[in-house]
Amino acid sequence: MGSLQTPTSPLGLGHSKTQKATMQKLLIIKIGGNIIDNEIKLAAFLKDYASINSNKILVHGGGKLATKLAQQMGIEQIMVDGRRITDAETLKIVTMVYAGAINKKIVAQLQANNCNAIGLSGADGNVIKAHKRVHSTMDYGFVGDVDSVNINLLKTLLDNGFSPILSPITHNGEGQLLNTNADTIAQETAKAMSGLFDVELIYYFEKKGVLLDANDDDSVIPEINKKYYLQLKNEQKIFAGMIPKLDNAFAAIDAGVSKVIIGKAEELQDLMSGKFGTQIVNGEW
Amino acid sequence: MGSLQTPTSPLGLGHSKTQKATMQKLLIIKIGGNIIDNEIKLAAFLKDYASINSNKILVHGGGKLATKLAQQMGIEQIMVDGRRITDAETLKIVTMVYAGAINKKIVAQLQANNCNAIGLSGADGNVIKAHKRVHSTMDYGFVGDVDSVNINLLKTLLDNGFSPILSPITHNGEGQLLNTNADTIAQETAKAMSGLFDVELIYYFEKKGVLLDANDDDSVIPEINKKYYLQLKNEQKIFAGMIPKLDNAFAAIDAGVSKVIIGKAEELQDLMSGKFGTQIVNGEW
Repeated sequence: MGSLQTPTSPLGLGHSKTQKATMQKLLIIKIGGNIIDNEIKLAAFLKDYASINSNKILVHGGGKLATKLAQQMGIEQIMVDGRRITDAETLKIVTMVYAGAINKKIVAQLQANNCNAIGLSGADGNVIKAHKRVHSTMDYGFVGDVDSVNINLLKTLLDNGFSPILSPITHNGEGQLLNTNADTIAQETAKAMSGLFDVELIYYFEKKGVLLDANDDDSVIPEINKKYYLQLKNEQKIFAGMIPKLDNAFAAIDAGVSKVIIGKAEELQDLMSGKFGTQIVNGEW
Repeated sequence: MGSLQTPTSPLGLGHSKTQKATMQKLLIIKIGGNIIDNEIKLAAFLKDYASINSNKILVHGGGKLATKLAQQMGIEQIMVDGRRITDAETLKIVTMVYAGAINKKIVAQLQANNCNAIGLSGADGNVIKAHKRVHSTMDYGFVGDVDSVNINLLKTLLDNGFSPILSPITHNGEGQLLNTNADTIAQETAKAMSGLFDVELIYYFEKKGVLLDANDDDSVIPEINKKYYLQLKNEQKIFAGMIPKLDNAFAAIDAGVSKVIIGKAEELQDLMSGKFGTQIVNGEW
C-alpha cells in the first residue's frame, strides 16, 4: 500500500450527512506560532490534545525559532509580503527547526501524555508531495505547493492507534525538500481524508473566533454558512484578512470536510462542542 | 498495537537455523559520518540501499554537521574520551541535525529512488525508549541508553512496504529527548527484531572489514566465529579498538541475530553476498 497515492481535493465528492454519520470521526488540528513559541501554552494544549478520544492528526507551523536560529547563524532572512523566501540555507534551517526541533519536542511531550504520536515530514512515507512554487514574477525559492496526500499511510497509522504529527516540510518526489504553509497542509489533508472519515478541521487563532466587530473580542459569530458569509461580506462586516481564511474554509467544506472550526487553543473541548469559537458549516445558500 | 512494547535483548532466545529459514529476512544497516558527510558517497549508497529487495531498516549516525552548527551558533562542545557531552543546547542541536536535517535528507533521497522510506526518531511511535545515562563519576548530560524497541511498530511499517530510517535521537517516555549512539540503536533493534525476522546487521566501516594485519587493507578476514575470534585475541591479532566492536557483534549473534557484517559502504551487494567484508557468524566454540 505504501506506493498508493490519492490526489488531494476530491472536489465535488462531498458526502451527504447520512453517509458521514456512518464514518468514523477524524479531527485535524492546526497550531501555529502563538502556541508553539509559548512553552506553557504548548504543554497545556498538548495535554488537552492527548486526551481527545478520537482519530486525530496535528499539523504544526514554525513559530519564531527558525528566525532566531538564522540570526544566530548569521543567515539573512528575506521576507516579501510577509512570506519568507526560502533559499538553500534557509531550507536547511526550517527543515532542522520544523521537522527536527519542533516536531520531535511535540511528539515526545505527547508520548509523555500517553498519546502515541508519530512525527512526519511530507517526505516520510511520501505523506505530502508538493512541487516548487511557480510564480510569474517572484521566485519564492524552495517553497512547495501541495499536490497529493498519502491517505493510505495516514489511515494505516490511525487504524493502528497512532496520531500523526505533520510538520510543514514536504518533498517533490525527486529528492528535494520544500517549505510549505502549515494552514495549506491542514486543509489539503482534511480534504483528502474526507473520503474516508467524517473530518472536522480546527484552526487555532489569536482571537476567540470570527468576530462580527473586529474591535470587540466578545462578538464571536458562533456559526457561519455560505449564505450568512455572503451577507456579512456584502455588509462589509468581514474584514480583509479574514476573507481568504473563510474562502479556504468553505473550499474545504465543498470538498467534503464536515466542519471547520476557528478559535482559541485554550478552549479545545469547548471548540469541539460548539460552545466557543466559530463553526463554519455546510448549509443552504 | 501502538502501546505494546517488547523489551530488547531477548537473550538466550536465539532461533535455530531451521527456524530462521522459515522467517522473512530483515537487513539492518548502520551508516556513520564517513558516508553522511560525503554527498557523493551518500547518494551512491542510498541508490544501492533503495535497490535492496527485502525488508530493511537504516540507522544513521550524525557526522560533522552538528559540530559545525554548534560552532556557527557559538555553542562550545565538550568532548570527554571522544564522547560529546550533551547539555540542553547541544541536545537541541543534535535533535535538529540528526532527526531533522540528516534524517529528512536521507528520506527524500530514498523516496526519489522509489524506496518508501519513513524517518523516525525514537520518540515517534515510541520506537526507541531510553533512559538518561547513569554513570558513577561522569554526567554525560542528555545521553540515552536504550531500554526497549517497539517491534510492533517496525513490523507494521515493514509489512506495509515502508523502510524505517532511524535517527540516533531517543526519548524517555516522560517528554525528554535523548542523544543516543547509533551503533547501539542498530544493535538493539537487530536483537529485538530477531524474534520476528531472520536478521542480518551490517555496520559500515572505513576499512574493508576486520583485518588480520591492521597495516594491510587487503588482509580482510572473510568470516569469524567465536572460536576463531578467541584464537585471534589470544594471538593478539585483533587490535584494541576492534575488541568492543566484535564483542558487541557476538552479543547480537547470541541474542538471535543471524549474521553481523562489517565492511565498506561502496560494496553493499558484495557485502551481503559474502564476497567482501567480514561476516561474524554463529558457530562452534
